[in-house]
Amino acid sequence: MVTRTVDLRSDTVTKPTEAMRAAMANADVDDDVLGVDPTAYRFEAEMAKVMGKEAALFVPSGTMGNLISVLVHCEIRGSEVILGDNSHIHVYENGGISTIGNVHSKTVKNNSDGTMDISLIEASIRDPEEELYYPTTRLICLENTHANCGGRCLTVEYTNKVGEVAKKHGLKLHIDGARIFNASTALGVPVSKLVQAADSVSVCLSKGLGAPIGSVIVGSKSFIAKAKRLRKTLGGGMRQVGILCAAAYVALHENVGKLEDDHKKTKILADGINQIKELSIDMSSIETNIIFFDILEGSNVTVEKLVQFLEKHGILVMPASSSSIRLVLHHQISECDVQYTLSCIQQAVQLQVENVRN
Amino acid sequence: MVTRTVDLRSDTVTKPTEAMRAAMANADVDDDVLGVDPTAYRFEAEMAKVMGKEAALFVPSGTMGNLISVLVHCEIRGSEVILGDNSHIHVYENGGISTIGNVHSKTVKNNSDGTMDISLIEASIRDPEEELYYPTTRLICLENTHANCGGRCLTVEYTNKVGEVAKKHGLKLHIDGARIFNASTALGVPVSKLVQAADSVSVCLSKGLGAPIGSVIVGSKSFIAKAKRLRKTLGGGMRQVGILCAAAYVALHENVGKLEDDHKKTKILADGINQIKELSIDMSSIETNIIFFDILEGSNVTVEKLVQFLEKHGILVMPASSSSIRLVLHHQISECDVQYTLSCIQQAVQLQVENVRN
Amino acid sequence: MVTRTVDLRSDTVTKPTEAMRAAMANADVDDDVLGVDPTAYRFEAEMAKVMGKEAALFVPSGTMGNLISVLVHCEIRGSEVILGDNSHIHVYENGGISTIGNVHSKTVKNNSDGTMDISLIEASIRDPEEELYYPTTRLICLENTHANCGGRCLTVEYTNKVGEVAKKHGLKLHIDGARIFNASTALGVPVSKLVQAADSVSVCLSKGLGAPIGSVIVGSKSFIAKAKRLRKTLGGGMRQVGILCAAAYVALHENVGKLEDDHKKTKILADGINQIKELSIDMSSIETNIIFFDILEGSNVTVEKLVQFLEKHGILVMPASSSSIRLVLHHQISECDVQYTLSCIQQAVQLQVENVRN
Amino acid sequence: MVTRTVDLRSDTVTKPTEAMRAAMANADVDDDVLGVDPTAYRFEAEMAKVMGKEAALFVPSGTMGNLISVLVHCEIRGSEVILGDNSHIHVYENGGISTIGNVHSKTVKNNSDGTMDISLIEASIRDPEEELYYPTTRLICLENTHANCGGRCLTVEYTNKVGEVAKKHGLKLHIDGARIFNASTALGVPVSKLVQAADSVSVCLSKGLGAPIGSVIVGSKSFIAKAKRLRKTLGGGMRQVGILCAAAYVALHENVGKLEDDHKKTKILADGINQIKELSIDMSSIETNIIFFDILEGSNVTVEKLVQFLEKHGILVMPASSSSIRLVLHHQISECDVQYTLSCIQQAVQLQVENVRN
Repeated sequence: MVTRTVDLRSDTVTKPTEAMRAAMANADVDDDVLGVDPTAYRFEAEMAKVMGKEAALFVPSGTMGNLISVLVHCEIRGSEVILGDNSHIHVYENGGISTIGNVHSKTVKNNSDGTMDISLIEASIRDPEEELYYPTTRLICLENTHANCGGRCLTVEYTNKVGEVAKKHGLKLHIDGARIFNASTALGVPVSKLVQAADSVSVCLSKGLGAPIGSVIVGSKSFIAKAKRLRKTLGGGMRQVGILCAAAYVALHENVGKLEDDHKKTKILADGINQIKELSIDMSSIETNIIFFDILEGSNVTVEKLVQFLEKHGILVMPASSSSIRLVLHHQISECDVQYTLSCIQQAVQLQVENVRN
Repeated sequence: MVTRTVDLRSDTVTKPTEAMRAAMANADVDDDVLGVDPTAYRFEAEMAKVMGKEAALFVPSGTMGNLISVLVHCEIRGSEVILGDNSHIHVYENGGISTIGNVHSKTVKNNSDGTMDISLIEASIRDPEEELYYPTTRLICLENTHANCGGRCLTVEYTNKVGEVAKKHGLKLHIDGARIFNASTALGVPVSKLVQAADSVSVCLSKGLGAPIGSVIVGSKSFIAKAKRLRKTLGGGMRQVGILCAAAYVALHENVGKLEDDHKKTKILADGINQIKELSIDMSSIETNIIFFDILEGSNVTVEKLVQFLEKHGILVMPASSSSIRLVLHHQISECDVQYTLSCIQQAVQLQVENVRN
Repeated sequence: MVTRTVDLRSDTVTKPTEAMRAAMANADVDDDVLGVDPTAYRFEAEMAKVMGKEAALFVPSGTMGNLISVLVHCEIRGSEVILGDNSHIHVYENGGISTIGNVHSKTVKNNSDGTMDISLIEASIRDPEEELYYPTTRLICLENTHANCGGRCLTVEYTNKVGEVAKKHGLKLHIDGARIFNASTALGVPVSKLVQAADSVSVCLSKGLGAPIGSVIVGSKSFIAKAKRLRKTLGGGMRQVGILCAAAYVALHENVGKLEDDHKKTKILADGINQIKELSIDMSSIETNIIFFDILEGSNVTVEKLVQFLEKHGILVMPASSSSIRLVLHHQISECDVQYTLSCIQQAVQLQVENVRN
Repeated sequence: MVTRTVDLRSDTVTKPTEAMRAAMANADVDDDVLGVDPTAYRFEAEMAKVMGKEAALFVPSGTMGNLISVLVHCEIRGSEVILGDNSHIHVYENGGISTIGNVHSKTVKNNSDGTMDISLIEASIRDPEEELYYPTTRLICLENTHANCGGRCLTVEYTNKVGEVAKKHGLKLHIDGARIFNASTALGVPVSKLVQAADSVSVCLSKGLGAPIGSVIVGSKSFIAKAKRLRKTLGGGMRQVGILCAAAYVALHENVGKLEDDHKKTKILADGINQIKELSIDMSSIETNIIFFDILEGSNVTVEKLVQFLEKHGILVMPASSSSIRLVLHHQISECDVQYTLSCIQQAVQLQVENVRN
């Protein structure tokens, strides 16, 4: 009998808060495809300001935000993008930039901290003098925080260096900033400074910020004008979208401040897990709200049994490989949930170890 | 000083009702990308049932609904679709089926009632024995009601005939049913019977039905499985989408019954306009909630001035050409609004005619 | 027992002449992908000069010539091309501009003389102010002579008018000039004047000109630079292509002068066919080297039997529909072949008519 | 004053032999687009037999051969191909499989011998159960010999292992066999055995085999039927292509036997270069006709000056990086050319070293 649900599969699982629900119920809306929804207008203006860019556009998902951004920068047939081999765009977005967008991918190895070596980025830029054989490099993509690298943060310094490389070669820089507010919080740097070097950023509203639906992309006015048209093409233009923007507006003001707490709880949970002999975490990698922990070889603990045990106790987690599990924290995970989770993991491990002994 | 707004630009402009707002505020939601949002599940099941198909999928817009449907049926490179030269997909959706989806278009002339001659459809199907030079015809698209043809309805009989042609040649049939409930209402036929011959249908929730956001596509289970994946690729997968489905659920139950009233008011307005000497409407074309009226040549009335006059009086309309205007009615246009609009149009015409005389 | 072959299926069926074979055997060649084949260089320079354009590029086929041209002019995602509904690009090139090139097609009705009404072209250009819903019109395509319209010629005057429309709206103009030398010959106008208004032209070398392989595209230097790169992408870059250019060079100098004779023989053949009671030709349509003749309804003559009879007598022709046949003349059809063909058609018709009587 | 040209830039630079020229001059040809060129037919049949596959298709270039093959195997939208990060398709073919073909690339590291680790290939195959987020893996590509890895050969054993992985996961295997005859010669294995595990192979005729133009793709009958149609779409269908097939036929019979000599001369040249103190070659990598040599750091020899010196002496080579040069041998490089080249390289190095000393 489950008495409690602790959903650690992703920070996308949060439920809208009372304030968000009230905002949706009372939102002043109109037809945003006709460009006249006042709440969408207000929210996009706010996001542009927060991010330090000229303009912003609400989109139904982070995948669409990234897809539109890459396609606007690569609007000319024959474009190539440089991106991390472990990046969300390359791994988890259906290859849409190629299969829908005709953009060729040149991947560069992601280091464990989410960076790509600047020298490797630069070496991947195609020589325009050999263009007969090559696609044209037009874009570099970064991801901050980097999900598959455990939520690690890219610093202002690193981002600016990549920005300089981009500028030097006439390329654009896009940041998949699905969790850029987590990075900003962890680094103690305004988000606008973190993305200053970028020509475009996509920001997820329904991850750490807790809005029910949506992402935002920001950039120059001309970028957003092109993005708006492409959003229509893809079918992302929505009518009374002020409903969703109203919730997102609340999310922005209500939850950014809570990210620091999320990170603290994440460290507590990670510390606890790391003290279990059979499990292991690279603690230096715990910078924000994501934990990947490994089950040590020879420990007789299996991912499958651990996940099942937790599920039976109302704790939902994501297997990341045959020997590792991913946990993502968010504002609807309390300190109490953390202690409960830790205790359940300890029990599950203990049980499996004992079962083998007997 | 405008005391009233009568928005006749489109039926997409309706504001969510109190019931919808309440439903959104109280919706039971979860992460729909993970496939666990109960309200989305319930709504899609209901829509599938109403439409008489195996499965349904909520999408952010009608454009995405059509795009996904065409692309699923034309999943193999080298496909061609037969569609009306005046259809919404061909004219107003950015050419996305080609520019994003690589599908070649073979247009057939739309008659004024929204049909395409069956013989022309059949003649447009590519001969598979000459396939070396040809793309492969894989899909026929109909539109019901047909927006650019004034909201005219395709009958069950016509649709079934096209369905037979499709079947005979191994093609699929998609119906852009953005306003299929208007057709069902006007024809007095269950919507499921109207789309029985179709392999897929897209239905708009934010037009006549009045939901704030969204469309639904319906079809076989295997069609919807492919559609779901493509929705993710395009960026139409949304998180706590139950919020929007809750409103759509209300829309479905609250507003389908009101469409008959919309059509009555449309006829009243059209009749009134048609009695103005300088204006003209083909009254046989007024079947649902859309009016196109022409300004007679030599009448000294111009679209521009007419639109301006109406706007000053709080009435918003869409110019359709240099000598015609489109009006679309919906449940938030009252009988009183209709009389007010009529009276304003009369005044505007009168004024222009007199100005020229003086 | 066939003693003679008269191949009237197309002007693509000619065999290389002795002079062409000698030229190929002796061509001075090098690696054209590396840009150093002297014969390719010389031929392209000659073609550019003849066509009155800055530069030229040899491509393996007319289909590639058209595909590259459309794609260069429509290099930005979201482009639309205006072209004839009966044009070769739209009907016979696999829909490649969409299925490979992501370009959306807006077709305009081809009149029987191969023109499209200027007013219809202009009405088809998308309003840039409504661009949110529309692809961007970037190109108009003409075809001269127009194959499916019976080899009719577009005049300098008509072409220039279309060129003016293109210029006025900031569009490019491409001419599918597969048989532009036939048009030039029939109209008595230098080919360069016929294509003066065009930004690009593709010219087939293996139709009337009789070269074994290849087409040429011409345009500005920057157009050809982009075309060269796209040719490589499509796989049309060839190594010792001077072999083929040597034959094409001979074709240009040897066969352009023979086109007038082809046209004369075509008129003779058409006249003869038209005098057969059961057959019919619009003689005003016979301007160059193509004949479409109809079998009159009720004549008891069928396309199938007629084609079979001719084939048995060594005459190869193309059925064009269930009641019409296409014949194409070229420099390897002698006057004697024309008389023989005429006589065989007369016999075939006679036989079928008599068979029915008996 | 250059008295001799030794072109070592690529094996694509060979001039057609007398026998090839004679064959082209005398070829029996017809319209291959209509499917009736006897020489093309004979050549394709021969190639299919030699390669041990059901059918073959002549294409204008290796790039088109690879592009068609990948696109046929990945005909369904949303496909992903696994290929080497240093492969010709990924690096030198304009990204055409994405920019033209909409296929997403998943690269795997090429080892220095041209292989990819089997375990890495297998780990790159997308889990079909997670397909909501992923493109569908449909193809693995190998390259044999591997150009960028110095012409190294993939063995039958390795190829078969990859074939088993492909089969196990329902994937296709394509081999870019531009220089597959070099591999066959070096390994002493029939070419048909080397490609037995492959569903398709592209073979270049204008590299080591010395034909002026063209490649061939081989596979099953149904693969070739689809390939033929795609060749037409891309513009690779050519008319009297028997001209080129005649030369290719000679190339096949004349030059395969000479590859062993090419490899011997390559070893001699490599050995000689490796003995120059300032230069270095991994001799174990010299398996066929390609040499990459490095200039040792601190040697005061530069690529630029070395290339210039050689060019002045009629020897053409390709810089491969800022400190390495590529040489490719072929049947038109004599032993004498090898000695001359070696001697010139020695002189050039000597001169630069001395210049610095003085």
